[in-house]
Amino acid sequence: MASTWSMGPGTLEIPLSLFAKNRNRLAEKLKSGQVVVLQGGDSIPHYDTDVEYVFRQEPYFTWVCGVRDPGCYFALDVATRKSYLFVPRLPIDYEIWMGKLLSCEDFKKLYAVDEVYYVDELATILQGLKPETLLTLCGVNSDSGLTAKEAIFEGINEFKVDNETLFPIIAELRVIKTPEEIEVLRYVCKVSSDAHKKVMLYAKPGLQEYQCEAVFLEHCYRAGGCRHVSYTCICGSGHNAATLHYGHASAPNAKTIAPGDMCLFDMGGNYGGYAADITCSFPANGKFTEDQKLIYEAVLFARDAVIREAKPGVLWPDMHLLANRTMLEHLKKGGLLKGDVEEMINHGIHGVLQPHGLGHLLGLDVHDVGGYLAHCPARPPGPLRRLRTARALQPGMTLTVEPGCYFVDRLLSEAKNDPEQSQFFNWDMVDRFRNFGGVRIEDDVLITETGVENLTFVPRTVAEIEEHMANGANFK
Amino acid sequence: MASTWSMGPGTLEIPLSLFAKNRNRLAEKLKSGQVVVLQGGDSIPHYDTDVEYVFRQEPYFTWVCGVRDPGCYFALDVATRKSYLFVPRLPIDYEIWMGKLLSCEDFKKLYAVDEVYYVDELATILQGLKPETLLTLCGVNSDSGLTAKEAIFEGINEFKVDNETLFPIIAELRVIKTPEEIEVLRYVCKVSSDAHKKVMLYAKPGLQEYQCEAVFLEHCYRAGGCRHVSYTCICGSGHNAATLHYGHASAPNAKTIAPGDMCLFDMGGNYGGYAADITCSFPANGKFTEDQKLIYEAVLFARDAVIREAKPGVLWPDMHLLANRTMLEHLKKGGLLKGDVEEMINHGIHGVLQPHGLGHLLGLDVHDVGGYLAHCPARPPGPLRRLRTARALQPGMTLTVEPGCYFVDRLLSEAKNDPEQSQFFNWDMVDRFRNFGGVRIEDDVLITETGVENLTFVPRTVAEIEEHMANGANFK
Repeated sequence: MASTWSMGPGTLEIPLSLFAKNRNRLAEKLKSGQVVVLQGGDSIPHYDTDVEYVFRQEPYFTWVCGVRDPGCYFALDVATRKSYLFVPRLPIDYEIWMGKLLSCEDFKKLYAVDEVYYVDELATILQGLKPETLLTLCGVNSDSGLTAKEAIFEGINEFKVDNETLFPIIAELRVIKTPEEIEVLRYVCKVSSDAHKKVMLYAKPGLQEYQCEAVFLEHCYRAGGCRHVSYTCICGSGHNAATLHYGHASAPNAKTIAPGDMCLFDMGGNYGGYAADITCSFPANGKFTEDQKLIYEAVLFARDAVIREAKPGVLWPDMHLLANRTMLEHLKKGGLLKGDVEEMINHGIHGVLQPHGLGHLLGLDVHDVGGYLAHCPARPPGPLRRLRTARALQPGMTLTVEPGCYFVDRLLSEAKNDPEQSQFFNWDMVDRFRNFGGVRIEDDVLITETGVENLTFVPRTVAEIEEHMANGANFK
Repeated sequence: MASTWSMGPGTLEIPLSLFAKNRNRLAEKLKSGQVVVLQGGDSIPHYDTDVEYVFRQEPYFTWVCGVRDPGCYFALDVATRKSYLFVPRLPIDYEIWMGKLLSCEDFKKLYAVDEVYYVDELATILQGLKPETLLTLCGVNSDSGLTAKEAIFEGINEFKVDNETLFPIIAELRVIKTPEEIEVLRYVCKVSSDAHKKVMLYAKPGLQEYQCEAVFLEHCYRAGGCRHVSYTCICGSGHNAATLHYGHASAPNAKTIAPGDMCLFDMGGNYGGYAADITCSFPANGKFTEDQKLIYEAVLFARDAVIREAKPGVLWPDMHLLANRTMLEHLKKGGLLKGDVEEMINHGIHGVLQPHGLGHLLGLDVHDVGGYLAHCPARPPGPLRRLRTARALQPGMTLTVEPGCYFVDRLLSEAKNDPEQSQFFNWDMVDRFRNFGGVRIEDDVLITETGVENLTFVPRTVAEIEEHMANGANFK
């Protein structure tokens, strides 16, 4: 029986016990008589064609069983703790086009589940378990506003279905990572860190931004077995660095990197479904100007402060404000801002310069679930509304720490026209930065019993970056 | 006004007149009073999250206007030949997250269309055109069985809608490529050919198949500006080469390449929506064994015969049979088969060894539209049913020519158990090939006035491949 899964030599062996542990943790929160039913993802065609996107499994489904094939269902009988996988019954021609037809016995070994049947047997097998209630997944993702994929199948109407119990329980369990999950996150962060370091050697003025994306993707896949990245690569140079989610089809990383540009590259691999999410900001030509150093260190010191202070019990909004204050303090020292920092916060200056939250939970989703569950602190008002969680930190949480400082034209113009906000800026100096873009420093961290373990290994100080990039001259 | 689009220095400048020409060709087939309305593609989230697949535009929409943004509509007024683009009205915060908010005037310049409005103005603007009928797209893709994305919008019920006229006309127009489109296909085939050549230098025993995929993807993107490939890379080595669409999530190119393996790598870049689709087969260690050479040359000679004979007026099924006969003849010479080749065809031996059609139309879809339109020859019965078209060749068609020879366990076992088929095989020899996998050679070709122009530039003969791969020792 397979006891691990990996992409082959040199890549991480994920123990299948990771998924068994997840579903056991789930069973412990539920009652006999309940049977959990989850529906996995389906392949998505390119419009009306017979070509499909490379399949990505639904993350709750991955969490509970680690199955990588489309078209499956999974059931967990709480009474017996038995796991049931249901796979599509494929036509015999599948073998010619898609590969060896696996038997139920093969799937049982492959995924280390207790029993495997075909999807067309799902209703019958569930009937045999005589459940009091089927628990299906239904709940709103607080980042997107979209609803989780709820299981639906022929015959479900003959069961008593409860679609409220499961979501908050499983989402909460996903927030706290097991040691096995942390190993996977550690791995994917290491691979992604290495890929960022490679990109920093490669990047230089004259290249197109997307050429750096290509180098990142190649390293994650070839050297780390990461077929997917966790989100569309954001490769902003110069003014594009001020666009937080740059890189999509309408702004496709296609600017030529210019000599004086800062690069802001936000990219993360994905392994076994688990996401990395790392941002490096650096000067295109490998040496910081004084202006670049000012902004960069304002953000770096904000990151340092959070890494130093974050620990169990601390509230995430307090970490956000700590980062903001640290950054504003440094920008004031540098002459960009003036006045009292607390007054700046009261007047929303932090939201002008960093119009996003400090970071987010990280796991099978890059913006991982559980940020605003019913038992957690509600979304704060005002400039903190963009925070993706307001929770107190707990050991086993993994999050991004990603302070940033951006020069967004519209936000600066609005601030300049607002007498209350305007007074805090030295406009002569700010106007020099109008085309600067921005800086973001994003680490992936684990909350431990006593503080933070940083899973990210990239050059971070000005000296480290300049030293690393000096080797770029030898890059092939 | 932008007159071209490209991914920057070193990549092809696609003239926007390509799309204007397409819609003018369309208008010529239609009547005054008709207004064409197409709906572009929408972004697809990863399940319930706020992360999306990198957007790919709907191919009919690309064909008519080349617009790369999600959420748009396009209209063409046949009477005036005027083109109308409708873009989403985005919230002002878009600027912070996604980039500069383009005005309608900006879009007009970007895509060289006559008028641009917001999507919420679509019904009103169309009313102003006073159309007798709106033509929408509705028709079945003969490769997938799926239906084209038909435009739908609030207020459409107030129009007389005809969803039958447009599909066969636009699909037929897509079959014959304009010189401008051919230039794009030429480019993407060249980029993809170069990427294949790089992979052949890189590939060697001990690597994972997907590492070769990673090198291909990187080259297409970094050197050619191809953010997408046209389909999931098929990187089969050894027995996996017998799985025609290997490489998907359940069979993810994750075998270690072994010293005696043939590699069958079927991969194609995508530029501006236009697809390449190229297969190279080669021995993993760079030198053909006698057995490998036998199968390879049987397929190569089949390809050569088709390239020699294909020209306007020739029926594609005849080309398919020419390839089959040539291959069977060579396998007979090599001792793998025995008996009369015509008898083999009559008994379906060609379908045992090549269970797919000779090739397919190629364009904005990798399996391009127009294979079985109503005015074309119907799908043939028997072993030829897998052909994706049965049409007569015409100048301006672009197709793949992709004969193959595979040792598919189940098909061979069935043939061995069938006395009618069994007699044609020398089973002692065939059984030696049971784990061989297969060979496919796939070129992308243009039908010219007199024959074929091959758009594919990769080493093809045994000598060429061995010579090319000998340089792999120097590959970094």
